[in-house]
Amino acid sequence: MDSEFLKSQGISLDLALEAREIIRGETGREIPGVRVDKETYSHAVVTTVHIEDEAAQAVMGKPVGKYITIEAPVIRENNPEAHREVAEVLAAQLKKMAQLSMESNTLVVGLGNWYATPDALGPKVVGKCLVTRHLFKYAPQELQGGMRPVSALAPGVLGITGIETAEIIKGVVERIQPELIIAIDSLAARGVDRIATTIQLADTGINPGSGIGNKRAGINKETMGVKVVAIGVPTVAHAAVIAQDAIEKYIQSTGGRPGDASAAINNVLQPFGGNLTVTPKEIDTLIEDTAHIISGGLSIALHPGINPDDYAYYMH
Amino acid sequence: MDSEFLKSQGISLDLALEAREIIRGETGREIPGVRVDKETYSHAVVTTVHIEDEAAQAVMGKPVGKYITIEAPVIRENNPEAHREVAEVLAAQLKKMAQLSMESNTLVVGLGNWYATPDALGPKVVGKCLVTRHLFKYAPQELQGGMRPVSALAPGVLGITGIETAEIIKGVVERIQPELIIAIDSLAARGVDRIATTIQLADTGINPGSGIGNKRAGINKETMGVKVVAIGVPTVAHAAVIAQDAIEKYIQSTGGRPGDASAAINNVLQPFGGNLTVTPKEIDTLIEDTAHIISGGLSIALHPGINPDDYAYYMH
Amino acid sequence: MDSEFLKSQGISLDLALEAREIIRGETGREIPGVRVDKETYSHAVVTTVHIEDEAAQAVMGKPVGKYITIEAPVIRENNPEAHREVAEVLAAQLKKMAQLSMESNTLVVGLGNWYATPDALGPKVVGKCLVTRHLFKYAPQELQGGMRPVSALAPGVLGITGIETAEIIKGVVERIQPELIIAIDSLAARGVDRIATTIQLADTGINPGSGIGNKRAGINKETMGVKVVAIGVPTVAHAAVIAQDAIEKYIQSTGGRPGDASAAINNVLQPFGGNLTVTPKEIDTLIEDTAHIISGGLSIALHPGINPDDYAYYMH
Amino acid sequence: MDSEFLKSQGISLDLALEAREIIRGETGREIPGVRVDKETYSHAVVTTVHIEDEAAQAVMGKPVGKYITIEAPVIRENNPEAHREVAEVLAAQLKKMAQLSMESNTLVVGLGNWYATPDALGPKVVGKCLVTRHLFKYAPQELQGGMRPVSALAPGVLGITGIETAEIIKGVVERIQPELIIAIDSLAARGVDRIATTIQLADTGINPGSGIGNKRAGINKETMGVKVVAIGVPTVAHAAVIAQDAIEKYIQSTGGRPGDASAAINNVLQPFGGNLTVTPKEIDTLIEDTAHIISGGLSIALHPGINPDDYAYYMH
Repeated sequence: MDSEFLKSQGISLDLALEAREIIRGETGREIPGVRVDKETYSHAVVTTVHIEDEAAQAVMGKPVGKYITIEAPVIRENNPEAHREVAEVLAAQLKKMAQLSMESNTLVVGLGNWYATPDALGPKVVGKCLVTRHLFKYAPQELQGGMRPVSALAPGVLGITGIETAEIIKGVVERIQPELIIAIDSLAARGVDRIATTIQLADTGINPGSGIGNKRAGINKETMGVKVVAIGVPTVAHAAVIAQDAIEKYIQSTGGRPGDASAAINNVLQPFGGNLTVTPKEIDTLIEDTAHIISGGLSIALHPGINPDDYAYYMH
Repeated sequence: MDSEFLKSQGISLDLALEAREIIRGETGREIPGVRVDKETYSHAVVTTVHIEDEAAQAVMGKPVGKYITIEAPVIRENNPEAHREVAEVLAAQLKKMAQLSMESNTLVVGLGNWYATPDALGPKVVGKCLVTRHLFKYAPQELQGGMRPVSALAPGVLGITGIETAEIIKGVVERIQPELIIAIDSLAARGVDRIATTIQLADTGINPGSGIGNKRAGINKETMGVKVVAIGVPTVAHAAVIAQDAIEKYIQSTGGRPGDASAAINNVLQPFGGNLTVTPKEIDTLIEDTAHIISGGLSIALHPGINPDDYAYYMH
Repeated sequence: MDSEFLKSQGISLDLALEAREIIRGETGREIPGVRVDKETYSHAVVTTVHIEDEAAQAVMGKPVGKYITIEAPVIRENNPEAHREVAEVLAAQLKKMAQLSMESNTLVVGLGNWYATPDALGPKVVGKCLVTRHLFKYAPQELQGGMRPVSALAPGVLGITGIETAEIIKGVVERIQPELIIAIDSLAARGVDRIATTIQLADTGINPGSGIGNKRAGINKETMGVKVVAIGVPTVAHAAVIAQDAIEKYIQSTGGRPGDASAAINNVLQPFGGNLTVTPKEIDTLIEDTAHIISGGLSIALHPGINPDDYAYYMH
Repeated sequence: MDSEFLKSQGISLDLALEAREIIRGETGREIPGVRVDKETYSHAVVTTVHIEDEAAQAVMGKPVGKYITIEAPVIRENNPEAHREVAEVLAAQLKKMAQLSMESNTLVVGLGNWYATPDALGPKVVGKCLVTRHLFKYAPQELQGGMRPVSALAPGVLGITGIETAEIIKGVVERIQPELIIAIDSLAARGVDRIATTIQLADTGINPGSGIGNKRAGINKETMGVKVVAIGVPTVAHAAVIAQDAIEKYIQSTGGRPGDASAAINNVLQPFGGNLTVTPKEIDTLIEDTAHIISGGLSIALHPGINPDDYAYYMH
């Protein structure tokens, strides 16, 4: 796989970790301006990719900023105790990235489409979120102990609303003026082993690929005027990338050197082209469990007064 | 039933027709500043209540404006042909009230809560709406023939978002600047016979009761800056009003004169008070059919190029 | 309120506790053949009504058997710790009533209608249930530790399937031969204070009212051939009963003696009659929380090997 | 692509048309014992594959019987008039295959998982079905005019119920004794161009692949004791097949001869293996439209008394 193939398919990789792997695979060494840290927990490995200058930004195709990846294959297992640990790791990383004061007013935005399972992660997290902003306006102070004001919005997708998602969010942000936006999104990975095993936090928000014709606006500090932390989980892989990887693996196994397979792949993926994704059958359960972990992590990070024993409860 | 009782319960009647009936019942004559028209169709009676001056506004508890009521008990029957007629009557009234130019850019807003059946009418209509605004931006002109740019939003409810519904809508309106907002809402009626048989159109938008402590903002020309037509259908009746009506009917049947029953009613409706509503068991089917009729009516009114034979199709 | 009024309205009270109150209210003393025990927990009072002979059965309008009522107003509060206690109390009562051996094969049946919020409790519990029967057939033994084989079915309602619910369940029971059926259902209470505060367990299963024209078959040992424990929670109150109670309270407050109010009530509740119910607006949240508690209680009772700290997790 | 590859991946093609193409591709001539008819409509091509003897059954991997394929790419377009034609073609083919008498009692079974969009076609059709069996028991005769008794069941999937789907259906069939079962299912195609463009009717019911370890029971005349017509629509393609096709296309484009690519493909599709499927992003809309067409076709075929102008209405 090389970055030329991705460009030819109009695909921009969502995970910084995967983008880096491909580029390093081409050059064989660390990308200048990219720095990487690693921490290990019992059920999770946390890798932080720092994109430190504009040269690195150009190579990586991602804005300067911090991309934290939590790799936790245990998310795919039915192991509540381990899921709780992953939620706690997520909370710790989110707190570090967001630097919230106790009064911080946070808007959680669930991107994606309620009606298409692999794209429903964001709206699901919104539905499980412990929302409190209205309590701060209307309820007695004792209900507010240990909580921060949190609001949540699932703006829907263009095909259902007829409105750009960024427009809806921007409109709401201008009215309620949060200090922080946390945007939850389903991602597309290069490899299927990333599906429901990897959580990425990015302090750069959501930035659509820069290809020609890309009319979608970003959801980031520049467009929203406030800090945006994006939390994304791969729930699908790109069908074209899977096909390309299979071709390469096969050619290598025959001792050959793969050339440009774009035409063959486009032929097979007609008539849907780049809009085809690969998903496992049990995607409904994976989405449910992942939404559970993320909403749990948000509650731990945003509402420090909640007893950790109870957070699982709040995750429903 | 008198208007004092309603005030004591903090209830403001949603249907202008019912408000007028109660006040006329007290005075025995038409309310000064209120004018009423009537048209009859084979399956629907259309009554327009004009509130013409501020005196009438004060008595009726509703702003100066036009309130069109379509009474069609046939909505509750399984009669597709008749439902089609009701959708056409709704479309005709909506067109008259909205005075749309062909370029008019309309935002349909579905108020209410997806998760509570009797309150889900608005979001259901949004889900069935023929949304086209994005086609006008991105699609070739031939796709646009006979359609107006329509967008749709289901903003959710305060308990789920933590944000006032009016704030969300106002934010989006400021961004996309529609010429018209059509707000769909579930209403509470005085009488159970109104449930899923009556559609009200109001050119005054949505105006919360004026009682003390009512912190909800209206969705109307004043708050939104553009014309707002409200389309509402009673899906519940007020439990307190039903109890009061039963008491009055009973006392009258014994030849007595009813007095103030508020204390007895409050006692029975503890601990939920005014938040209790009366619903029929088949509310899911009634909501589905009503949403169908309203989204059909919207398509006929907003997209004149669609063949009437096909509108039923577009209503899914 | 007397039992004559209920008969005239075709209403049979679902809660044994309420049925007993009304009859005792008429006679002023305990009903012969009815015995009552009471236990008190920090957030719940457990009352067991034993209907011990056929005379008591005739008076109570409910079959001979044990009716355990857990009264826990805390269900309506946002108090995870207290909810956990209620789930544990439910589990303890269920274990006592069901007398399960470790190999017991249990079928959980969620009665009611997914599409109508107040009637969706049963299907919601099925969706949250920890189902394991297939693991016992297909999975390695180590996955089975501390679990019993549990299956779950949401058979739908007559209007959607065209098939009597009891027929569907009976058909499945004949195939999979469980030792125990646990049937979850939404109930209608006399008083609104029972809504989402009371859980009834009955070892007599589900027995439709015995009124003329009642064509619904029961779901009980007699029809199913195996033990049936019914778990029910009031999610609505009868509108006719609420109206009658309001009339009585009012008449008493004026020093009068209430007579027969059926005609007045029928007049007000036209055209839906006995099918009208009273619900609080926040019914969606109440149903969600109650389903959470019941599925948690089921997991604790049926799967003794699950760590109590994790049950909240399994309740999603 | 050859049949060896499919076997090595444990994949059995759902569409008889695709199975035939592959085998003919290998042999270059029509398969003995297979006969094919073709009819052409303005928006649909109908091909009937007759598998006429056991030799053909062995080669095709599908039981002796009739497989009607309706190819209608227009399903993917927003064209209500054409969709209506497809529904009518479906109804005509279904009537011919089912040979219903006017009293025929039909059970529609919606296979698949409500919670996973590409697998939700069956349950969606059940939700849109015009169910009448209960009317024949309880309603006055005039409601029955021109309708047949139809019931509908969405039995759920093994992971949610813990019960084999065939067991649930068999249990219900034994109780209500229908003359015909119509089983609706999502299929997996070889090619992505089949997704939401092809409808297959099979008078052989549902027959799981015959691979070792396949413990799923069929839903067919043999297991159910009554005629079973299966209606299936591809909503996904097999990821492994897509990868294999891409490899073959690429090798051919380089002038080479493809060998066995199983190892390369398995490597790329780890850790989900054969359970990975390829879906277009707009799968929610495709499923909704397809369910609409199928439920419309069922109504036309099963309820001859319904005015064709109204069928679109009944399709909601």
